[in-house]
Amino acid sequence: MRAIVHRVPMSDPSDVSGVVGLIESGTVAADDILAILGKTEGNGCVNDFTRGYATASLKTALAEQRGCRPKDLDGKVAFVMSGGTEGGLSPHFLVFARAADGAPAAGQKRLALGTAFTRAFAPEEIGRRAQVEETAAAVRAAMTEAGITEAGDVHYVQIKCPLLTRERMAEAEARGQRVATEDTYHSMGLSRGASALGVALALGEVAAVPPDAAIGHDLTLFSSRASTSAGIELMRNEIMVAGMSAAWGGDLVIDHAVMKDGIDLPAAQGVLGRLGLPVGGQLDEMTRTRFVALLAKAEPSRSGTIRGARHIMWDDSDINATRHARALVGGVLAGLIGDTRLFVSGGAEHQGPDGGGPVAIIARAH
Amino acid sequence: MRAIVHRVPMSDPSDVSGVVGLIESGTVAADDILAILGKTEGNGCVNDFTRGYATASLKTALAEQRGCRPKDLDGKVAFVMSGGTEGGLSPHFLVFARAADGAPAAGQKRLALGTAFTRAFAPEEIGRRAQVEETAAAVRAAMTEAGITEAGDVHYVQIKCPLLTRERMAEAEARGQRVATEDTYHSMGLSRGASALGVALALGEVAAVPPDAAIGHDLTLFSSRASTSAGIELMRNEIMVAGMSAAWGGDLVIDHAVMKDGIDLPAAQGVLGRLGLPVGGQLDEMTRTRFVALLAKAEPSRSGTIRGARHIMWDDSDINATRHARALVGGVLAGLIGDTRLFVSGGAEHQGPDGGGPVAIIARAH
Amino acid sequence: MRAIVHRVPMSDPSDVSGVVGLIESGTVAADDILAILGKTEGNGCVNDFTRGYATASLKTALAEQRGCRPKDLDGKVAFVMSGGTEGGLSPHFLVFARAADGAPAAGQKRLALGTAFTRAFAPEEIGRRAQVEETAAAVRAAMTEAGITEAGDVHYVQIKCPLLTRERMAEAEARGQRVATEDTYHSMGLSRGASALGVALALGEVAAVPPDAAIGHDLTLFSSRASTSAGIELMRNEIMVAGMSAAWGGDLVIDHAVMKDGIDLPAAQGVLGRLGLPVGGQLDEMTRTRFVALLAKAEPSRSGTIRGARHIMWDDSDINATRHARALVGGVLAGLIGDTRLFVSGGAEHQGPDGGGPVAIIARAH
Amino acid sequence: MRAIVHRVPMSDPSDVSGVVGLIESGTVAADDILAILGKTEGNGCVNDFTRGYATASLKTALAEQRGCRPKDLDGKVAFVMSGGTEGGLSPHFLVFARAADGAPAAGQKRLALGTAFTRAFAPEEIGRRAQVEETAAAVRAAMTEAGITEAGDVHYVQIKCPLLTRERMAEAEARGQRVATEDTYHSMGLSRGASALGVALALGEVAAVPPDAAIGHDLTLFSSRASTSAGIELMRNEIMVAGMSAAWGGDLVIDHAVMKDGIDLPAAQGVLGRLGLPVGGQLDEMTRTRFVALLAKAEPSRSGTIRGARHIMWDDSDINATRHARALVGGVLAGLIGDTRLFVSGGAEHQGPDGGGPVAIIARAH
Repeated sequence: MRAIVHRVPMSDPSDVSGVVGLIESGTVAADDILAILGKTEGNGCVNDFTRGYATASLKTALAEQRGCRPKDLDGKVAFVMSGGTEGGLSPHFLVFARAADGAPAAGQKRLALGTAFTRAFAPEEIGRRAQVEETAAAVRAAMTEAGITEAGDVHYVQIKCPLLTRERMAEAEARGQRVATEDTYHSMGLSRGASALGVALALGEVAAVPPDAAIGHDLTLFSSRASTSAGIELMRNEIMVAGMSAAWGGDLVIDHAVMKDGIDLPAAQGVLGRLGLPVGGQLDEMTRTRFVALLAKAEPSRSGTIRGARHIMWDDSDINATRHARALVGGVLAGLIGDTRLFVSGGAEHQGPDGGGPVAIIARAH
Repeated sequence: MRAIVHRVPMSDPSDVSGVVGLIESGTVAADDILAILGKTEGNGCVNDFTRGYATASLKTALAEQRGCRPKDLDGKVAFVMSGGTEGGLSPHFLVFARAADGAPAAGQKRLALGTAFTRAFAPEEIGRRAQVEETAAAVRAAMTEAGITEAGDVHYVQIKCPLLTRERMAEAEARGQRVATEDTYHSMGLSRGASALGVALALGEVAAVPPDAAIGHDLTLFSSRASTSAGIELMRNEIMVAGMSAAWGGDLVIDHAVMKDGIDLPAAQGVLGRLGLPVGGQLDEMTRTRFVALLAKAEPSRSGTIRGARHIMWDDSDINATRHARALVGGVLAGLIGDTRLFVSGGAEHQGPDGGGPVAIIARAH
Repeated sequence: MRAIVHRVPMSDPSDVSGVVGLIESGTVAADDILAILGKTEGNGCVNDFTRGYATASLKTALAEQRGCRPKDLDGKVAFVMSGGTEGGLSPHFLVFARAADGAPAAGQKRLALGTAFTRAFAPEEIGRRAQVEETAAAVRAAMTEAGITEAGDVHYVQIKCPLLTRERMAEAEARGQRVATEDTYHSMGLSRGASALGVALALGEVAAVPPDAAIGHDLTLFSSRASTSAGIELMRNEIMVAGMSAAWGGDLVIDHAVMKDGIDLPAAQGVLGRLGLPVGGQLDEMTRTRFVALLAKAEPSRSGTIRGARHIMWDDSDINATRHARALVGGVLAGLIGDTRLFVSGGAEHQGPDGGGPVAIIARAH
Repeated sequence: MRAIVHRVPMSDPSDVSGVVGLIESGTVAADDILAILGKTEGNGCVNDFTRGYATASLKTALAEQRGCRPKDLDGKVAFVMSGGTEGGLSPHFLVFARAADGAPAAGQKRLALGTAFTRAFAPEEIGRRAQVEETAAAVRAAMTEAGITEAGDVHYVQIKCPLLTRERMAEAEARGQRVATEDTYHSMGLSRGASALGVALALGEVAAVPPDAAIGHDLTLFSSRASTSAGIELMRNEIMVAGMSAAWGGDLVIDHAVMKDGIDLPAAQGVLGRLGLPVGGQLDEMTRTRFVALLAKAEPSRSGTIRGARHIMWDDSDINATRHARALVGGVLAGLIGDTRLFVSGGAEHQGPDGGGPVAIIARAH
């Protein structure tokens, strides 16, 4: 068993030729694909239809390759689109797959991938303890599937989670239930936050299920390895765990760190160092061939400052705060890697400290 | 003689309390101020009134401190406001002054500042060879004033230059003259470009005055040390040269490099190294006390790519391309310095190669 | 006594030449100016500095005309800038003044103006009953000053009101008080809403001071004649009442209606009709000479629909919802009047029904 | 033969349930559909992917209904998506179909529809005389197909036309040809303009094919009935003509006018009057049942003014000028009709005078 991770460019949200090319060239078997992440060029906010457009385009193409209907892919492949390529970020897809070949070598851990899905949530469970608990259980299941035995070997957990719509709120109210918020946009943050706390619980980063009131509010509680994203098209959580396991072969490795704020370059340098890559500055052309992918979360600090200096992300009524945050973190990390094809996504509730966030890097072992 | 450079925060474009504080605390004498640069939080494009608002607020305050009228400051102090604090950039003022104390030490060069002003241009001269030639002469005059004898000792030239308005075009046409462009916005780029080529000419970076047709078009011609900015409120070029001179004392030094693209972190690391600062990654708290200011230009590459990967700056009809570029370069450099109070400005025609730009750093000598 | 109302164009937020021109031409005496409203070209949201820039420019110019210092104008002249000239709206100033000449004619009412100011509010009073009650008292005082004896003769009440800042919240908390909201942006809406309810109370549109919990929430409570705007530069409410009074002469008259939604053209047609202007469609060039000014409020309906059809104002993360609303209402009314110099402002909490708002028109009597 | 025109709502760009509902309810036969126009909620500019997303969703759904593959619809059904629902405009689809029933009544004309397609253009023909001439021929063919015998009976011509991409430019250059512009965005305007001039030529609104230099420049040349839209997915022009013909039955009628500027309400009132609808203001609920659809073009005036008053559309670097223009015209017309489901599209080169544009209304005959 070995993990496969590929980045392919996207000329627009419907351009899935890169993914199809991987399959048709035999690089990846269509049936081996576990998840496709996409960095699409929308605004990453409410009216970002590049995510749905890319997902629909991917489903049509992958179903054709697999010889099934698009809807048959539900629950089999996770499609996680993150809108927003501000600054210099480059639109691309990240394909995660698992191949049967690749025997593990003794005494050596390699990148391992596992997926799991929670049951569907009732609207009133979204952004609350139930979502935290179910997510934690699913993370543990995905770890088992991936053959990852210790929480410390988990370096990245990607989750796609549901949000509340007017219809879903109404359905809950009709049953006499109260939802966590009546603000659709706010429900995205609560769902992301509860999902991240589920990861934190599964990995021992929080000791117990936090009270509902802490979700979205107590920023001292967070996972250093969660990356969660809310979407309208599902009612359950879809989880992909990436970590290190002795049961996997291949040549890929992963590590992570927590950026304590948006300009925490040393955190990312630390990851490079632990992966055996140079840390003195930007990767050069030679060492960059060992670099495979970077995944990070970005969020404007609620304090309105970075190391004491005012930022204007929250005050800019022309550009959404998360767009500024992605541009900033994308710049910091592109400077280090020498590559703009980075999966930097926004909305980092309970995913790292206020204003910071996790950064994970996948590389080829040397 | 010694140079004084201070960064002070700005809570909004009218907040000049930081500048006033420098004067009232005795740190800088009001009469010693040569130039005030400002990074304001507007969009940096056509309808960015934060620049005018900040300039008006500064003039009122500085005139009060000097005991003169605001308009008496014209031609004495250069006010250069650059709009746009995208990503994590922090709004601030940069005050450049010159104090009579500070004897030079033998065999040692220190930061030297000089200013000069061209004659007023006729509208038809803007963006053309006349502007290039006059600017070159003024740069040489400012070098002389600064006691900088060699072009190689110039590390940064800030220029504020005029633009064309409908009225100015009409005035030229009434005299039977043709202006370089009938597009007001385009005239800003041509004026910035001609001014930058004037710097290149004065510093020997281009061999001769280029033909009018090359201005704004031949991107192989550029200065590695020019930073030019167009404004509506003047008809001449205002120039501040910053370089190294044996005639100056104090403890400030300056160096520069050219970023070959928006993510050229190694270029900025090279500057830090030449200034005797650590180059292995982000400045730590200790070494950051030696850091005084960073000035850089940012521009989206016309190719639409960065190292072969597509960027979306030109295609984004919601956020102006220069805003993306500032966010990117601001992130790259903030990651290195560990500080977001950086003077990153857009509009880099003939200021560095396509998609790149100069970066200058002022530090305390050790 | 007669009222004077003039619209003058603004080429940018600092262009007060139109106002100065009114004074220097003798059209308006500097000392007679009661209020200057401005429609400036910023985004009308948090980082709209065109309002402050215009106010500062007006104060400097008017102080020079009056021979006083800018700060001496506080509490004497109300400066109310409303940002946002979306769609076709044209930036302009609206000058309201009162001249001693102009004897009233028997049996005839004319436009009457009055101003009043509340005491300064404590931070914890903003957006609460205290602000409602004090505002109601001040509206009554302004009516008395204007010689308006019946609530039915009041057609427009412009209020500038304070907002909460972090500092003001902290000051209240230090005294053990709780403010109405800890969200600065939200405090603007609460302050506008409480001020509008103060108008409603004074004019008998609500029967009693509503409970704190209704402020910002119970949209069935509203004034049909309030237009309120929050600003950072004051802690009290500044009020200008415009109505009809038998004690005033001159040739100006005013009337108003409530637009029940953003496309309620018939409401505005009704106002024209009551003022004796043609109602069959757009004013023609002849009748337009009788038109003096139009003031209206615009707000996106919380339902997300207009007459059952979905609007996208709330879902557009690139353009703030209030910008869409101003553009829409501006278009509807410009189509009717044949003029884009209309004072359409956003933020209509408790100022008309959800999605609608008051519209007042000032005309020359025939 | 009779024409069928239906508006159906769109909850997001992929929501084709309204169109499918028309077919499944038997209101429209899938095979009878000639064209589907869509007003989608993107920015209407370069990176507006809502158009492609809606088109892809429509093709998939309609192919399923027709029992063919999506690509089999090319050249049979015109899909014209116009991005931008600024102000209060409501996203919707407009379905145009032709049913075999509906005998014409003697002496009475009814709405007639015809489609035609030009040959594919070479890149160097786009935005030039060849495109004008071919379009004119195709308009005449579509008139013939629709049984419209006189140019005066044509009231609306919708055209979808190609644009230049880097690849297309390169292909032309490889053959030694020069394209009309090297700016992709500019090519959209030239293609729209040349297509509109083709309509003008076919309808006798211009006397002869204008020289290439006039295309995009000589604003005195225009069609009062063209509405053209550029898209990347085709290389030919697709044309739908809507007019009045004695050969058609049914109960639909159409008329049009030219708005001379963005606030020309009387022009639209004139159309209502000629269609026998009330002209005194907004349609009331009763008469609105006779209203079927409105199609209009919006464009910011190049002069920067509307009836002498400055607009800020061109100067706003946060919101594209065409977005302001659509919001304005949408407001003016929604005020008249009392309905926000209007097809107001931008990019009106040679489609009406500078700052104005055609407006066509389809109604039920009484």
